[in-house]
Amino acid sequence: MDSIEKLTEIFKEFPGIGERQARRFVYFLMGRNGGYVGNLSQLITDLKKETAQCKECFRFFNLRYSVDKKNLCEICADKNTDPALLMVVEKDSDFESVKKSRVYQGKYFILGGLVPIVEKTTKSRVRIEELKAKVKNSKGLKEIILAFSLNPQGDHTDQYVREQIKDIAEKFSIKISSLGRGLSTGTELEYSDNDTLRNALKNRQ
Amino acid sequence: MDSIEKLTEIFKEFPGIGERQARRFVYFLMGRNGGYVGNLSQLITDLKKETAQCKECFRFFNLRYSVDKKNLCEICADKNTDPALLMVVEKDSDFESVKKSRVYQGKYFILGGLVPIVEKTTKSRVRIEELKAKVKNSKGLKEIILAFSLNPQGDHTDQYVREQIKDIAEKFSIKISSLGRGLSTGTELEYSDNDTLRNALKNRQ
Amino acid sequence: MDSIEKLTEIFKEFPGIGERQARRFVYFLMGRNGGYVGNLSQLITDLKKETAQCKECFRFFNLRYSVDKKNLCEICADKNTDPALLMVVEKDSDFESVKKSRVYQGKYFILGGLVPIVEKTTKSRVRIEELKAKVKNSKGLKEIILAFSLNPQGDHTDQYVREQIKDIAEKFSIKISSLGRGLSTGTELEYSDNDTLRNALKNRQ
Amino acid sequence: MDSIEKLTEIFKEFPGIGERQARRFVYFLMGRNGGYVGNLSQLITDLKKETAQCKECFRFFNLRYSVDKKNLCEICADKNTDPALLMVVEKDSDFESVKKSRVYQGKYFILGGLVPIVEKTTKSRVRIEELKAKVKNSKGLKEIILAFSLNPQGDHTDQYVREQIKDIAEKFSIKISSLGRGLSTGTELEYSDNDTLRNALKNRQ
Repeated sequence: MDSIEKLTEIFKEFPGIGERQARRFVYFLMGRNGGYVGNLSQLITDLKKETAQCKECFRFFNLRYSVDKKNLCEICADKNTDPALLMVVEKDSDFESVKKSRVYQGKYFILGGLVPIVEKTTKSRVRIEELKAKVKNSKGLKEIILAFSLNPQGDHTDQYVREQIKDIAEKFSIKISSLGRGLSTGTELEYSDNDTLRNALKNRQ
Repeated sequence: MDSIEKLTEIFKEFPGIGERQARRFVYFLMGRNGGYVGNLSQLITDLKKETAQCKECFRFFNLRYSVDKKNLCEICADKNTDPALLMVVEKDSDFESVKKSRVYQGKYFILGGLVPIVEKTTKSRVRIEELKAKVKNSKGLKEIILAFSLNPQGDHTDQYVREQIKDIAEKFSIKISSLGRGLSTGTELEYSDNDTLRNALKNRQ
Repeated sequence: MDSIEKLTEIFKEFPGIGERQARRFVYFLMGRNGGYVGNLSQLITDLKKETAQCKECFRFFNLRYSVDKKNLCEICADKNTDPALLMVVEKDSDFESVKKSRVYQGKYFILGGLVPIVEKTTKSRVRIEELKAKVKNSKGLKEIILAFSLNPQGDHTDQYVREQIKDIAEKFSIKISSLGRGLSTGTELEYSDNDTLRNALKNRQ
Repeated sequence: MDSIEKLTEIFKEFPGIGERQARRFVYFLMGRNGGYVGNLSQLITDLKKETAQCKECFRFFNLRYSVDKKNLCEICADKNTDPALLMVVEKDSDFESVKKSRVYQGKYFILGGLVPIVEKTTKSRVRIEELKAKVKNSKGLKEIILAFSLNPQGDHTDQYVREQIKDIAEKFSIKISSLGRGLSTGTELEYSDNDTLRNALKNRQ
């Protein structure tokens, strides 16, 4: 394999990229000047050097924003972050989406994946032990918000996490909630599935 | 215009049908045998004869299901229908969707359209006076559920109807609610819009 | 089954229409006034009365355009139609498409279908005997143009028809041709399949 | 701008990549281990070092395949490449597509772009002077094949290049051809545009 083939293989691992587009990326790079390519190569190296995983919420963040340079992200370190709320999400891009919406000012926890419905050994996949420890050590925590996508695996993960943290949450009088369900932007009644209608009716207000 | 052209024009008015498909329908009919076409023609005539508009909920229904043959649909006539709940929907196909889901056992009211945001003379379009009369005359009514699609026009209609029936609802101690909002089936957190996230967070439970 | 159900079943047979849209059609008709529905019903009956199948080219046409009212369509009856060319197409809508393009002034023949690749008894499906008779009786015919869609079944039909009419065409010195192949409008070289590239290269000019 | 922002900007320039996917790429890289990221960074640098632009056909190629290490690609250097044919394509990915199809064994020339219809100063954009020089110096050249995508800009480029190389081609008795036009794989007669039908009819055989 030459560098064209090797690079195509690597680009194929990028999210949403297939063989053909991976190859187009390589040809695109071949046609760019040395400055562009050198810059890209350097930035990729820099990104990794500048990136750390937060020891509290487990999201990847830029060390430049770290207050203490000790693996604590800017949100976990921020005194304005509401310690009473902890939102558990599947992955970094879910966190990004919520953060951008500016509708939430509490803490986050990246679970690191969803729990497959048929799987036995789930603990290896998701940070459930880390979550328990986090809950135990969080002073002033009042509510854990489970925020997973609304599909079978997300539902299963919701139930799994609830079950796992039930005892500890009860012990510390912490409420467990899940994101509300019903009509979302653009939902047309005529084409709604039964679950959405049931939730929309149940949660009417 | 010959019958091909005329029929194409009529099929173009069918929901979701453009010029090309309308023409394909005509050619399709030209190639079918006389029995099929005669049957279709007869059924269309029958449908109209058998159809009435319910004087209570304003939906179109099959007279065969009418108990008294006097323009009262089978749901409005059914003693098992819960008289405490009245769901207001935009159109017949929304009603169909909710009915099929089997999540609701109350009464219905077909408003007959949404209220355009920029329009002044809305009364001519939707059955707001009929709705007020219906509310006034409904014994045992406890709650009016506004069930419109979640888009700007649906929101506007929700506000408009609330405003219009506020006084009468208050007078008879009837609650006004709207369908719940939040994540709907298939919603992925990563790709959610701000409104959906805000509603999902606000309505968490 | 009531007329709603029966009519839904019939609309489901319309080209490209599924259960849901068929039902929407029925609801759409229920909500229209009697004049519209009566008109539609009448036009469907008229269409069939006014429609005949041309005895020469087998396409369905409006009798209003018939010169002799004796099952000869206006194109087959037109003296300006070029008798030297006969284009064989699969179905009426293919004929429509070519006619609308105004690039062809010869005669047509509707084969009535494509020949499935795996089928044995093909004669029952397509009008191959009628085509042979047509070729035998066509005075001044110089060229038969096979005009089928470019997919495996179209290719197979092309070969099948060529084989079937080879002898008779040779006897009367009639040329058999097929539509040209290569780049079609919008084809991008980058995304072209091998067959298209091969044809485009072979037929370069 | 931090390295996340900078890298997002760069990925946005990749073909077919928008803001959101560019950001997902960055998050994807943040979550990968150091080995993967180091490898990617190295390969991008290597790619550029290993890549040269062929002095004959102007395509980008891997120096590893160069015989003389002197900017002559493996196809231009190959004695089995047919010197009688020269295919002019817009860009590297068009060349790739033709090469992969294995339907052509002649030489190539990358024009470097299409000629915009409304533009005056086209010479700066495409390698028209380089093409003329190439034609002049190509021993044994019998035919130049113009192979552009079938859209208005591709058509315009075809005409422009023909006009520009007409004299020199005539002088050396070199034929100029364009890729054939007609039905391409998957074309359905019913949905064909007029141009495609006209070409398919004109180029029937």
